Amino acid sequence: MTHTATIDQATTDWIASAKTAAEAARAYAAAAQAKVAQTIAPGGRVDSSAADEHQRLVHGFAWIATTAEALAAVADWAERGKAQGRYGEIEELTLRVGFGEYLAQLIGGVPMSQNEFVRPQELGISDSAAALARDVAVSSFLETGNTAETRLALAKLLRDGQIPDEALDDETMDMIRDQFRVFTRERIAPSAHAWHLEDALIPDEIVEEMAQLGVFGVCIEEEFGGLGLGKLAMCLVSEELSRGWICAGSLGTRSEIAGELIGGNGTPEQKAYWLPKIASGEVLPTAVFTEPDVGSDLASVRTRATRQDDGSWRINGAKNWITHAARTDLMTVLCRTNTDTPGYGGLSMLLAAKTRKQGEDDFPDEGLFGSEIEVLGYRGMREYALSFEDFRVAEDGLLGGAEGQGFKQLMRTFEGARIQTAARAIGVGWNAFDAALRYATERRQFGKQLADFPRVTDKLAMMVAELVMARELTYSAARHKDKGERCDIEAGMAKLLGARVAWANADMCVQIHGGNGYALEYEASRILCDARILNIFEGAGEIQAHVIGRGLASPRG
Amino acid sequence: MTHTATIDQATTDWIASAKTAAEAARAYAAAAQAKVAQTIAPGGRVDSSAADEHQRLVHGFAWIATTAEALAAVADWAERGKAQGRYGEIEELTLRVGFGEYLAQLIGGVPMSQNEFVRPQELGISDSAAALARDVAVSSFLETGNTAETRLALAKLLRDGQIPDEALDDETMDMIRDQFRVFTRERIAPSAHAWHLEDALIPDEIVEEMAQLGVFGVCIEEEFGGLGLGKLAMCLVSEELSRGWICAGSLGTRSEIAGELIGGNGTPEQKAYWLPKIASGEVLPTAVFTEPDVGSDLASVRTRATRQDDGSWRINGAKNWITHAARTDLMTVLCRTNTDTPGYGGLSMLLAAKTRKQGEDDFPDEGLFGSEIEVLGYRGMREYALSFEDFRVAEDGLLGGAEGQGFKQLMRTFEGARIQTAARAIGVGWNAFDAALRYATERRQFGKQLADFPRVTDKLAMMVAELVMARELTYSAARHKDKGERCDIEAGMAKLLGARVAWANADMCVQIHGGNGYALEYEASRILCDARILNIFEGAGEIQAHVIGRGLASPRG
Ligand SMILES: Cc1cc2nc3c(=O)[nH]c(=O)nc-3n(C[C@H](O)[C@H](O)[C@H](O)COP(=O)(O)OP(=O)(O)OC[C@H]3O[C@@H](n4cnc5c(N)ncnc54)[C@H](O)[C@@H]3O)c2cc1C
Ligand SMILES: Cc1cc2nc3c(=O)[nH]c(=O)nc-3n(C[C@H](O)[C@H](O)[C@H](O)COP(=O)(O)OP(=O)(O)OC[C@H]3O[C@@H](n4cnc5c(N)ncnc54)[C@H](O)[C@@H]3O)c2cc1C
Ligand SMILES: CC(C)(COP(=O)(O)OP(=O)(O)OC[C@H]1O[C@@H](n2cnc3c(N)ncnc32)[C@H](O)[C@@H]1OP(=O)(O)O)[C@@H](O)C(=O)NCCC(=O)NCCS
Ligand SMILES: CC(C)(COP(=O)(O)OP(=O)(O)OC[C@H]1O[C@@H](n2cnc3c(N)ncnc32)[C@H](O)[C@@H]1OP(=O)(O)O)[C@@H](O)C(=O)NCCC(=O)NCCS
Repeated sequence: MTHTATIDQATTDWIASAKTAAEAARAYAAAAQAKVAQTIAPGGRVDSSAADEHQRLVHGFAWIATTAEALAAVADWAERGKAQGRYGEIEELTLRVGFGEYLAQLIGGVPMSQNEFVRPQELGISDSAAALARDVAVSSFLETGNTAETRLALAKLLRDGQIPDEALDDETMDMIRDQFRVFTRERIAPSAHAWHLEDALIPDEIVEEMAQLGVFGVCIEEEFGGLGLGKLAMCLVSEELSRGWICAGSLGTRSEIAGELIGGNGTPEQKAYWLPKIASGEVLPTAVFTEPDVGSDLASVRTRATRQDDGSWRINGAKNWITHAARTDLMTVLCRTNTDTPGYGGLSMLLAAKTRKQGEDDFPDEGLFGSEIEVLGYRGMREYALSFEDFRVAEDGLLGGAEGQGFKQLMRTFEGARIQTAARAIGVGWNAFDAALRYATERRQFGKQLADFPRVTDKLAMMVAELVMARELTYSAARHKDKGERCDIEAGMAKLLGARVAWANADMCVQIHGGNGYALEYEASRILCDARILNIFEGAGEIQAHVIGRGLASPRG
Repeated sequence: MTHTATIDQATTDWIASAKTAAEAARAYAAAAQAKVAQTIAPGGRVDSSAADEHQRLVHGFAWIATTAEALAAVADWAERGKAQGRYGEIEELTLRVGFGEYLAQLIGGVPMSQNEFVRPQELGISDSAAALARDVAVSSFLETGNTAETRLALAKLLRDGQIPDEALDDETMDMIRDQFRVFTRERIAPSAHAWHLEDALIPDEIVEEMAQLGVFGVCIEEEFGGLGLGKLAMCLVSEELSRGWICAGSLGTRSEIAGELIGGNGTPEQKAYWLPKIASGEVLPTAVFTEPDVGSDLASVRTRATRQDDGSWRINGAKNWITHAARTDLMTVLCRTNTDTPGYGGLSMLLAAKTRKQGEDDFPDEGLFGSEIEVLGYRGMREYALSFEDFRVAEDGLLGGAEGQGFKQLMRTFEGARIQTAARAIGVGWNAFDAALRYATERRQFGKQLADFPRVTDKLAMMVAELVMARELTYSAARHKDKGERCDIEAGMAKLLGARVAWANADMCVQIHGGNGYALEYEASRILCDARILNIFEGAGEIQAHVIGRGLASPRG
């Protein structure tokens, strides 16, 4: 695709402005950080009860910092694209609309949810906000970035079938995206809605085909039969599959979690035994962490695992919300092995082999019982409440052979899982955009296509501008994670923004469909239901904001 | 309940500030109006194509004006409450939080949807916004209205079981509210969720009990067997019933529409024949306007009605999205009686008797066929696609005996219907709040009630502050309508804001429920689905903004 840059290119170097504006946004976030640090970490270390008391401050700062990092990531994207000759009109319009909007949010109010906005006033940084608004680069975006004209021009190109640059300057990566886009178009998209409506498990055959494509071992090392790729590749796979159906993009989530738990913490025997089976899809894992009374506060897990005289373990307790529990072969179970140590120190991770559902018998194993939890969306794998009654786990089931490490093992793993979830959110957001654009050009009202009305094109343009924001932030978190650094903050940011964007896009997709968006028959209604989960699981939005806000409030000790 | 006013009362007269701030907000809206008028009605009359081209401007103005009117309505509410000795701490906190938020939105960005914000810059009225922010009363709300402290204090009173003043200075009205609150608590709330999950018609028995209470004839004159009350009473009934289930609050909608169509336009014979039957609930009507290709643009209706030699009518065509079509006895059908007159001038309203479903036979009448449309929520009455094939309507079926009047008859009727829909939205919004508050005090995490965390109480406090905003705006529209004046603008404002608030509240209700909000078992998941319809039917949000923005842009000629 060749692009020609026409809009205002002569007068403004928008990429240079974006770089400057992103730095100004970061400086503004730093002002917010200073306020937060002063309030909750006056002595340098975060005071937990102060952080709880001042959540709007701490979480608001998290949202501000997230917005600033998204801007920085998109400025980098534009610069990279330019260097590679891929920066044309649609990229410039996306940049302008996105920057115009997010900078205006920083100054006028960042939506943390539909009824919580964080504004400079709340943090006592109105002066910094005024300074931000006065910055020349920022003010050029505020005045001429996100306007009726730029949104319309962007929407026009989108209607023409263009999309903003998504190349990754890496042949393998671009190939992966293409491959999964084709697979999704051919194998997922045509049936996804029917599978959702039937509330069916995604067919074994599709699981098998995904296994062939390597979905379950993207990040598992090649020596263990995986693709040996990093989190960026995982993002592409998840994004493209989710663009057809969130379930397709989520099938690999539990393999990613188990693969990371074992790859990062397992004994050599555990790695050698489980990883090849996970990578090949022979073993499908399920992630068993949440309990009926324990969701966000995982350190309080109560399910008990007791070592037996023969070295094996017995699990007792109740778990809740366990996705794909029936059709799986391995449970990664967070449980308390030491009841004398309250909090996270008493928790361990068990690798518990289980028997896959057999016919109508969902849970054939002794000591393991389950019942389905019916849900709005995110179907295709099913969620279960599980109960363990002296359920037996083999002697070598303790992850890494080390007790008391379960929580931290899991927290490190959640980094990847949250980045993967952000990628799923972006896929769902694209699904919403695709369906909305299609409908807006097919449906006519008042003698015109819906896409001839600015209220419709405004929505479409913003859907894409926000997707690029969330996507580039997610890729940036993935690159960070691939360097091996702790990145719960970066992962949290990607998850936080991704979930908001997916939800907004799904909501706009329904609105553009009018009454039909409310009909089960239309994909729009499914996308709405699917999108709603993203701000809840893998750490709710409030928990991500907590991780980001506290993490940035003081240097980690 | 006695209230004691403690917060800042000594230093600020918040009611006086609210009156002043609301006037300042109206002045700001007037600045927006001037810009809009200049752009789309330079010659005094609205230029339709200019209005379409500048939708963000026109609709953005509509949102600004709506926000300003909500502020004015709430200032009046506080003043009235004060005069009656009912203004205490919770009212003051509600006022401060609501004003703080909505004034900040006017200055920083009013959310028209999750991805469309209207900001002063977009309308070229940044100077007016700056002036608004400088107003002393406004700035006191911006600085100390909606703060962590006021939200927390408000939430504390809500947890204690208090609610902001809802009395109406009228014994009958207060009695109606009480009566329907009790009925809803006893007869609707306990079963609503099961009915939703079963996708069942709301039981005949309940319909009968509602008929006994007068639900179907609230606004029908006493001489025709109705209660002879006005739209304000209709709001109370709808709000309270919807607080249990949107379906309960919607059962009366079609009776309200038919009652208003016939009461306002019918021949003496039509009134005498239909109104008593509608009022008693003996006849349940269904509203037959939308078509597969005609939704927002009702003037383009194509379903044909042809006069026969014997004076009777034959209807041919397809209708879509017809709520409660099967279990009803009367259709109000918008159809084209004159194909030579395109647009609304060729449309008439027919009163078409039909046979109620009999056993499994949903549509026993000759020439009338229907199939169900499955939906996300708003269940209990069922939606249908209808097809008419030479369906016969009696000679006296033409509303008012006048051809070509159907569209305007309907538009006047929509005023009341939209106010009623706003009231339903408020009921759904309360339902969301009730469920969220309950869950937030029952569920514990991190060793505390959820309601001990500011991110949770912030949501709860804002849910109530916004409900009071939307409610008072709705009551104000109802009072306006009760005066007999044209009030499509006021009705549109109430519907526009009500739908946004209900949706935001439902979203927050789910979020506070965490994973359980996503489970079909929990009411939260139903409330989310129910709330989503409100911004689509009875004129989508974009259509309300269109009506308000154009209506206010130039004086009506
Ligand atoms: C469809 C689905 C699939 C799932 N799959 C799995 C799975 O496979 N394995 C698994 O282990 N789990 C799974 N979960 C569970 C999921 O991870 C939890 O739902 C999530 O962690 C939130 O926990 P909770 O539901 O208990 O909410 P709670 O922790 O009770 O939180 C409720 C609300 O309170 C807020 N809140 C909580 N604490 C605070 C605080 N300190 N400050 C401010 N706000 C707070 C939350 O953000 C949320 O809004 C799944 C859930 C769903 C719905
Ligand atoms: C559950 C349910 C129950 C219903 N019950 C009834 C009933 O009992 N009787 C009945 O007659 N109808 C009923 N309806 C139909 C309802 O009134 C319509 O869905 C509604 O009027 C919108 O029309 P539409 O669905 O055709 O959307 P469209 O008109 O196709 O609109 C689609 C989208 O485009 C936007 N749009 C349209 N025109 C413009 C414009 N000019 N500028 C900007 N944006 C625009 C809309 O706002 C919307 O976002 C019901 C619908 C539902 C979903
Ligand atoms: C809320 C939550 C972030 C933990 O908060 P917390 O209990 O306050 O725990 P802390 O942040 O104090 O962390 C406890 C320890 O783990 C460490 N830790 C946390 N995240 C880490 C990470 N990503 N990498 C390495 N260490 C980490 C901390 O440094 C701390 O160590 P220390 O005690 O040695 O200083 C965690 O429970 C969580 O993510 N909840 C959401 C649940 C979820 O995502 N469920 C999805 C199921 S599919
Ligand atoms: C979009 C919509 C507002 C009409 O827009 P439009 O086609 O541009 O029509 P106009 O606003 O020009 O109105 C046409 C005429 O009706 C008149 N009219 C409109 N609303 C009126 C009202 N509330 N009272 C009296 N007259 C009214 C206008 O004054 C105009 O009369 P004129 O030609 O003599 O000047 C209307 O089709 C609508 O409400 N659509 C939403 C559909 C809906 O709510 N469906 C719910 C089904 S349950």
